[in-house]
Amino acid sequence: MMRLNEQARGVFIIAVTPFTDSGELDLPSTDRLVEFYLERGATGLTVLGMMGEAPKLTASESLTYVEHVIERVAGRVPVVAGASGAGLAPMAELARQMMQAGAAGVMVAPPSHLRSDDQLVNYYTQVGQAIGRDTPFVLQDFPLATSVQIPVQAIVRIVNDNPNCVMLKHEDWPGLEKISALRQAEAEGRMRRISILAGNGGLFLPEELGRGADGAMTGFGYPEMMAGVYAAHTAGDAEKAHDLFDAYLPLARYEQQPGLGLAIRKYVLARRGAISSSAIRLPGAKLSPADIGEIEHLIERQESRLQEMNR
Amino acid sequence: MMRLNEQARGVFIIAVTPFTDSGELDLPSTDRLVEFYLERGATGLTVLGMMGEAPKLTASESLTYVEHVIERVAGRVPVVAGASGAGLAPMAELARQMMQAGAAGVMVAPPSHLRSDDQLVNYYTQVGQAIGRDTPFVLQDFPLATSVQIPVQAIVRIVNDNPNCVMLKHEDWPGLEKISALRQAEAEGRMRRISILAGNGGLFLPEELGRGADGAMTGFGYPEMMAGVYAAHTAGDAEKAHDLFDAYLPLARYEQQPGLGLAIRKYVLARRGAISSSAIRLPGAKLSPADIGEIEHLIERQESRLQEMNR
Amino acid sequence: MMRLNEQARGVFIIAVTPFTDSGELDLPSTDRLVEFYLERGATGLTVLGMMGEAPKLTASESLTYVEHVIERVAGRVPVVAGASGAGLAPMAELARQMMQAGAAGVMVAPPSHLRSDDQLVNYYTQVGQAIGRDTPFVLQDFPLATSVQIPVQAIVRIVNDNPNCVMLKHEDWPGLEKISALRQAEAEGRMRRISILAGNGGLFLPEELGRGADGAMTGFGYPEMMAGVYAAHTAGDAEKAHDLFDAYLPLARYEQQPGLGLAIRKYVLARRGAISSSAIRLPGAKLSPADIGEIEHLIERQESRLQEMNR
Amino acid sequence: MMRLNEQARGVFIIAVTPFTDSGELDLPSTDRLVEFYLERGATGLTVLGMMGEAPKLTASESLTYVEHVIERVAGRVPVVAGASGAGLAPMAELARQMMQAGAAGVMVAPPSHLRSDDQLVNYYTQVGQAIGRDTPFVLQDFPLATSVQIPVQAIVRIVNDNPNCVMLKHEDWPGLEKISALRQAEAEGRMRRISILAGNGGLFLPEELGRGADGAMTGFGYPEMMAGVYAAHTAGDAEKAHDLFDAYLPLARYEQQPGLGLAIRKYVLARRGAISSSAIRLPGAKLSPADIGEIEHLIERQESRLQEMNR
Repeated sequence: MMRLNEQARGVFIIAVTPFTDSGELDLPSTDRLVEFYLERGATGLTVLGMMGEAPKLTASESLTYVEHVIERVAGRVPVVAGASGAGLAPMAELARQMMQAGAAGVMVAPPSHLRSDDQLVNYYTQVGQAIGRDTPFVLQDFPLATSVQIPVQAIVRIVNDNPNCVMLKHEDWPGLEKISALRQAEAEGRMRRISILAGNGGLFLPEELGRGADGAMTGFGYPEMMAGVYAAHTAGDAEKAHDLFDAYLPLARYEQQPGLGLAIRKYVLARRGAISSSAIRLPGAKLSPADIGEIEHLIERQESRLQEMNR
Repeated sequence: MMRLNEQARGVFIIAVTPFTDSGELDLPSTDRLVEFYLERGATGLTVLGMMGEAPKLTASESLTYVEHVIERVAGRVPVVAGASGAGLAPMAELARQMMQAGAAGVMVAPPSHLRSDDQLVNYYTQVGQAIGRDTPFVLQDFPLATSVQIPVQAIVRIVNDNPNCVMLKHEDWPGLEKISALRQAEAEGRMRRISILAGNGGLFLPEELGRGADGAMTGFGYPEMMAGVYAAHTAGDAEKAHDLFDAYLPLARYEQQPGLGLAIRKYVLARRGAISSSAIRLPGAKLSPADIGEIEHLIERQESRLQEMNR
Repeated sequence: MMRLNEQARGVFIIAVTPFTDSGELDLPSTDRLVEFYLERGATGLTVLGMMGEAPKLTASESLTYVEHVIERVAGRVPVVAGASGAGLAPMAELARQMMQAGAAGVMVAPPSHLRSDDQLVNYYTQVGQAIGRDTPFVLQDFPLATSVQIPVQAIVRIVNDNPNCVMLKHEDWPGLEKISALRQAEAEGRMRRISILAGNGGLFLPEELGRGADGAMTGFGYPEMMAGVYAAHTAGDAEKAHDLFDAYLPLARYEQQPGLGLAIRKYVLARRGAISSSAIRLPGAKLSPADIGEIEHLIERQESRLQEMNR
Repeated sequence: MMRLNEQARGVFIIAVTPFTDSGELDLPSTDRLVEFYLERGATGLTVLGMMGEAPKLTASESLTYVEHVIERVAGRVPVVAGASGAGLAPMAELARQMMQAGAAGVMVAPPSHLRSDDQLVNYYTQVGQAIGRDTPFVLQDFPLATSVQIPVQAIVRIVNDNPNCVMLKHEDWPGLEKISALRQAEAEGRMRRISILAGNGGLFLPEELGRGADGAMTGFGYPEMMAGVYAAHTAGDAEKAHDLFDAYLPLARYEQQPGLGLAIRKYVLARRGAISSSAIRLPGAKLSPADIGEIEHLIERQESRLQEMNR
């Protein structure tokens, strides 16, 4: 079985969870979506993340969905499963189920009431033990969504205290200096090397790669942008990475609207044939005709620009 | 089957969930606890509330626990089950399971991101539909815990829009004027009559009853205080209600410390033999020897004062 | 004297407050900055906003600075002054001082504890009276900074209740539908027409103009972007507006990082000669060499792209 | 001139700011209020605190009020002035003015966006320098009002780094263990001895004194409660301290309602003749007839109980 480790690189796509128009889990779309992501360069998948509508699934649906994804992926790339939650007992149960289903690791964001460095460190020590030391975990650092700020010094302690903490999903904002500080802590031997994948819809991906990120773990209707930027950066062609990024930026910016972002992303994925329906489970946002008009306009402009670049 | 309705009165105890020292569900203690609560005047029980460590139970544990409580209660009083959660699909499933197990209704607190009147009204309309119109629900109004303020005008609309909204668990703080305003809205025909039960550990119970509350839905290591205050108030003896309240107030105040309150409550319940262990599942607070010394001192003083009153 | 009214249009720049390296108010730079903004198309200036470091100025410095700006502007464009604050008495005094100095109006954001529609409406009624009905005011709607969400229905009531509420500084996020809803409320006669200027660093300017915004009230190191986008939009050339916007977007996105944004903006303004020093008063962020490298790189790429566009 | 130092003990009353019915500063009432507080056992006064409506005063009113209080006190007890604010420059100016007027020190609460230990430590280092090392300051630790949690470890660092940090206004909640932990840090030589005065309306005063607090710095309509509890505790009579505390607790609990507390306190002070009007400046809460009825009832019961105790 594939286990996530500190060397993970590339683009882990935060997968949406497809539903039918009537709100049922859409497993045929799930198959298409997996292929869509892999064809566009995903080197990993992350399911049951915030953008995967995890809290809107029942326990049995979550398991069904994850098992289906893992079966379809069939070992081609690692699959990480979100396991955040208020209690350690259900988190431990979920983590066990996910790992048994073949997940490569789990991802855990902090509960929103945590504040001090010690509170954070203690919480992740409890997490690291509860899920079992042989279950690798991703520390999700996403203050805009969790209201929790995790300072560099706390991350250093969490990583050093928990051998199964192998990756940071970095979406502090602003956070470029945080990547630099963590890489420096590694360079000075103060912290074990971990994988750092950038979030925030890829809106700072070229700069994050420049600071030492190993790739991205986030979502976007055009995941090939992230794969392309990563490939160009890795090939040493920073300008090409920026050119590609800039071509997608107007739409990426539009998709990054809090609250509305998932509706936009699912609209684009449905438009591209990756899923059958753009349905979101309640509670959730709905696009207006004006929203859709703006998205279509941005896609049209994006396609023109990409054609121009490829001439 | 007993259904919760707008006429509910008395004291619905927010039940703790008993665990063994090693953190397993403690069903024998659950039996004792149910009898303990009923003997001390509970006219209803509420399980899987915030103080019931609901988010720390797995889905199957939740069901096991609620079924066990309902079986033990055996129809003597109604049992309400907490069903708050971020997604409507798992909430609907949980509500269905709880009602099938024999619950009298469910309780739903708002997710923490809701702000405007319209957002609140829309959310509870979705809730009222998702759980099914034949499932009565309690609107939990607890800003200190949820960060959501529900204005009187929004409650009026929620009640009027949802025939299955039959009760308000009132723990806004300060909130005495809110009870008065809701009772006035009823008197003026602007809102259907609902049951209003007071929360906040009973710390304002005499005043809340004076404003028109129908009783309490909250927890305390000495639930007989709430039952006694309610009985005296109902018998028209406000001074006796206050005298009794005052005797318990020093400990009630101490128990109301956020974060620490559940540990204090379970300590007291274990000390009184209602449960075997004061264990709390992680993450959770722990009492220090100094904390315990203070609790013991307060109990001793409380007992003296009660003896004095009864002389 | 020029008074702000409901017909205001164009680009009101949120002016930075220039300091010397040692942290003193820099009045010579203030002169240069005013000219810089006007030359690049500002049709108004807003001083003492959040990005103007208003809370870091003493009362006398605030007055000195505003008087200096207004004197330099010499009636060429209207000047709006921020007057947000926890108490109405000091707000009223500040508003009076600013209007006496020649300001065209004041801007007021809600205090962070407001939640319900009624609380918001009551607060702004108190504000509208306290500053005097002959003092026009701008309602600043900026949830990311204030934690307060102002729903459309509350804005409608605030505008209708307060004749001196003449403008909305729109920076809810996402907020495009909000502009549409407000313009619809006007069209249906439910709300008086007001000026709506878009914020958020201009990151959604083309779409906001398309929804009916009258321009922008925000800051950016290259204010000519906003003026250019506005001009192209007004001339009916949406594609040109987008082309220009896209050319500046990579840097605009970078500057929009919370916490760090002002440091980036002042760096760019100092680099362009608009102010002498990029100094920020404490508490405030500092750019690292890596930050500066990224900014320089983005400026270089921006210049290439603009040259290409102008060929 | 009297300077606040680490040995401060007793009861520092958080003074209200008296206004006339029409909202003007009421200096004659200020004189009466000062005498009222001193006669009831205040060993210090704190002005311009949160309950002193500081943000509702203009800069010149603040100065007038503080100067008037200090002149009236005439050196009988030290006077501490609140100086919290978003910017260091105006804080430094205010601190200078207050110290020149004869204040013994200033009090500073953290701005609400601070989160990590390092952010807190850095902020207070900036504060400690900005106000000048010869200006003693009180660290106000009040998470319920500021949303900022200051862990023990951060307080230890702040105290050790800033020789002018001489006192903690302790109103974390729950916070008894925090006092114990700080006193232990002192005992083990990890932290310089500081004065710790308890807040939260005195609602935990007996326990706080038992944990090592040096007294109280908070407000209540009956400040003699705090002085009496402190005196009994200091005299070694813990039971008498509790008896007195218990007699006042029903009203103290009622006064502690967030948002409404100041209106209750001013009502009681006006009723007792300490101030002429219970007026609060906008924005602020107003008591209803039902509120007043409850207060009067609680006062009546309190007086009976005190008489009974003194028989």
